Amino acid sequence: MENLKAYIAENQQRFLDELFELIRIPSISSESAHEADMYRAAKLWKKILLDCGADRAEVIETKGNPLTYGEKIIDPSFLTVLVYGHMDVMPVDPRELWTSDPFEPEIRDGKIYARGADDDKGQSFMHAKAFEYLVKNDLLRCNVKFIIEGEEEVGSENLPAFCRANKDLLKADIILVSDTSMIGPDIPSLTTGLRGLAYWEIEVLGPNRDLHSGLFGGAVANPINILAKMLADVSDENNHITIPGFYDKVQDVSAEERAKMARAPFDEKAYKDTLGIAELWGESGYSTNERTGIRPTFDVCGIWGGYSGEGAKTVLPSKAYAKLSTRLVPNQDYKEIASLVKDYFEKIAPPSVKVKVSYLHGGNAYVCPVDIPAYKAAEKAYTKVYGIPPVPVRSGGSIPIISTFEEILGQKSVLMGFGLESDAIHSPNENYPVEQFLKGIETIAWFYYYFA
Amino acid sequence: MENLKAYIAENQQRFLDELFELIRIPSISSESAHEADMYRAAKLWKKILLDCGADRAEVIETKGNPLTYGEKIIDPSFLTVLVYGHMDVMPVDPRELWTSDPFEPEIRDGKIYARGADDDKGQSFMHAKAFEYLVKNDLLRCNVKFIIEGEEEVGSENLPAFCRANKDLLKADIILVSDTSMIGPDIPSLTTGLRGLAYWEIEVLGPNRDLHSGLFGGAVANPINILAKMLADVSDENNHITIPGFYDKVQDVSAEERAKMARAPFDEKAYKDTLGIAELWGESGYSTNERTGIRPTFDVCGIWGGYSGEGAKTVLPSKAYAKLSTRLVPNQDYKEIASLVKDYFEKIAPPSVKVKVSYLHGGNAYVCPVDIPAYKAAEKAYTKVYGIPPVPVRSGGSIPIISTFEEILGQKSVLMGFGLESDAIHSPNENYPVEQFLKGIETIAWFYYYFA
Repeated sequence: MENLKAYIAENQQRFLDELFELIRIPSISSESAHEADMYRAAKLWKKILLDCGADRAEVIETKGNPLTYGEKIIDPSFLTVLVYGHMDVMPVDPRELWTSDPFEPEIRDGKIYARGADDDKGQSFMHAKAFEYLVKNDLLRCNVKFIIEGEEEVGSENLPAFCRANKDLLKADIILVSDTSMIGPDIPSLTTGLRGLAYWEIEVLGPNRDLHSGLFGGAVANPINILAKMLADVSDENNHITIPGFYDKVQDVSAEERAKMARAPFDEKAYKDTLGIAELWGESGYSTNERTGIRPTFDVCGIWGGYSGEGAKTVLPSKAYAKLSTRLVPNQDYKEIASLVKDYFEKIAPPSVKVKVSYLHGGNAYVCPVDIPAYKAAEKAYTKVYGIPPVPVRSGGSIPIISTFEEILGQKSVLMGFGLESDAIHSPNENYPVEQFLKGIETIAWFYYYFA
Repeated sequence: MENLKAYIAENQQRFLDELFELIRIPSISSESAHEADMYRAAKLWKKILLDCGADRAEVIETKGNPLTYGEKIIDPSFLTVLVYGHMDVMPVDPRELWTSDPFEPEIRDGKIYARGADDDKGQSFMHAKAFEYLVKNDLLRCNVKFIIEGEEEVGSENLPAFCRANKDLLKADIILVSDTSMIGPDIPSLTTGLRGLAYWEIEVLGPNRDLHSGLFGGAVANPINILAKMLADVSDENNHITIPGFYDKVQDVSAEERAKMARAPFDEKAYKDTLGIAELWGESGYSTNERTGIRPTFDVCGIWGGYSGEGAKTVLPSKAYAKLSTRLVPNQDYKEIASLVKDYFEKIAPPSVKVKVSYLHGGNAYVCPVDIPAYKAAEKAYTKVYGIPPVPVRSGGSIPIISTFEEILGQKSVLMGFGLESDAIHSPNENYPVEQFLKGIETIAWFYYYFA
């Protein structure tokens, strides 16, 4: 492995060029207009895997977007690593807040700026390049399987069925995923927990047309006022969620574990300054890391209705809408929560409006034990590259398919993320430091070394 | 006056053609892109007045949109009527809900469909045509002044200054306005009260960019959640507004007057069916007519923030906005309410977000006495044309300039409206029955006869 650093340095420009080719495909899975781009991305991944040294790779149809599977089986008696990543990305709006074209990657101040630069094109591509190094230098001592899907950002709807139908194909000793972040560029960390997710759209229908707010105001229920009330009632003055049954299955974290979490570095001032906010916010009785790590949440991701143009329009609108999401923790069941929230809103809707809640997607929370061999191999790899051992952290984010893998394939995942909080994933000007990209390749190569 | 009906019948097609020319100008005052259209409308009104028989007419600049003034002075010793109307219209969105082009009037089922067909192009144009009839048939026994403004839908911002500077020019014995509606095509009514209005835009600023709702959700205040809470808290479970001081100056209406109002015909089932709603809504302890007639209201006219596209985007948005309006009653002062509401929201804003409230426009409520000569002349005119005397009603709508006229010019207005509730003013598919248009011309001509 002594030539690893040199190999990465020599091939750095080619690695970036190849990644940029992938990023240029606007593979936004939530927008049906990009259906063809999902196929282009899947085909490119097939080529990437074959070029890196896979024995075989193929684009596989699902009921939704295609996925790419590839493998290199050295010896069936060796350990097998299943690498999971996703080729789809989030929408780019508000487009006007991007400094450069979201699908024309640009390096500024040592960072790659583009949609997908981190999440998850940049991160999943590191696996291809670590694999390439090991194959080309005859250092691979594991079997490797890759599954790169195209629906992660919309809830991995069709991957569970694929997993159920291909349990043998996907059989492995560990699942390896880079789709999370580290505490800071000098503070490596490994994500040991992910929150679950459930997502809905709510529609509040009032009168059959927009009305004059003077002639009808006060006598006809205003769908926006009603929606605001319904959303406001979801939490109390302690920012505790009030939907009956919502916390029933929430796993309480022991005082001991909370004390350990409290030792993770957290600079409140820097955190607030980065976000441009004067005060933090959250559920009473919990720290910021606990609020994102071990507690469920309720966020309105979008809201719209009535007049939003220039100046004043005195209208009592006919309809109001919102996109709602909750983040879930062990042992909440996202399907139970999906029904619970839908039923709750439809039940509390006053008779003066019609309320319809559509469940869009979700997944369960996940916890990775810190004593399994693969976790320990990852710990050593980070220590080797970053000089200090990684901190185990519970992330607030969700990768719903991770808990589904555990359920269907019976296999844990190790979350070797190299993103940074400043990468602005899901936001305008998403970026990924070139250094994290290169160190990620290096760390992943060392993982294989220690794991084998 | 015996040839009045015949004159209207003979000229009906020309009247409609002329009105359609006015309607075709998209004079949306709240959208700056239509600035030139405001001038086109003002110039056309000048031509209309001169063609109808005005001695003089001119387009007058203001700091905002121009207005048109015209007059015919027969004899300074005669009574003078000042006709007020507005040439500006509301925006047309949602555009896709219109059956025909909002600025290409179309007659279907005896109704003119177009933005402004009723409010207020159709209604103000009736005055031009009644005036034309009287002039051409040498029946005019009053002096007549016309003031047609271009900013009514955005709060008549520049008209008060014009009135203050031109008190002599606008001197009159009564102000006559057609910008309200009747109970039904067979139930004439005269509006004796108008609600006041105040309108704001509220902006809630959270983090400096859209955030990942998993990584930050639960720890950073979500501007939409906060806005929903602030809007929900504006009213209690009785739909009573909770902003301190809001009701302080509200004039209580006597039990006797409420009993009189309760005799106005109201078909709850028909009202609900027309609007497509299952239940009415409003402040406890008041009837529907009282809720719109004598009680103030708080309506959210628009709301937006975060993701509103297809599917799911798990974002904690940076900003949220709403357009807010209240309808006011005597003796609430719109300037006091404007500050009260602005201060209230800025004060209750939690420190985790920044809240900015911009006051957009407003005006006071108005009451017309039923014993003044002009009101009685109007009463006789409706009785003559519709066969039964008009019901005096308090409308929920607002024409802020009416109370301003009283304040500056010291003159009451008589509100001879011919709109119908089904005209969908401010909504898609605004319309105005041709019959109401023609009967309006007839009734206005009789008003001059009885008033002189």
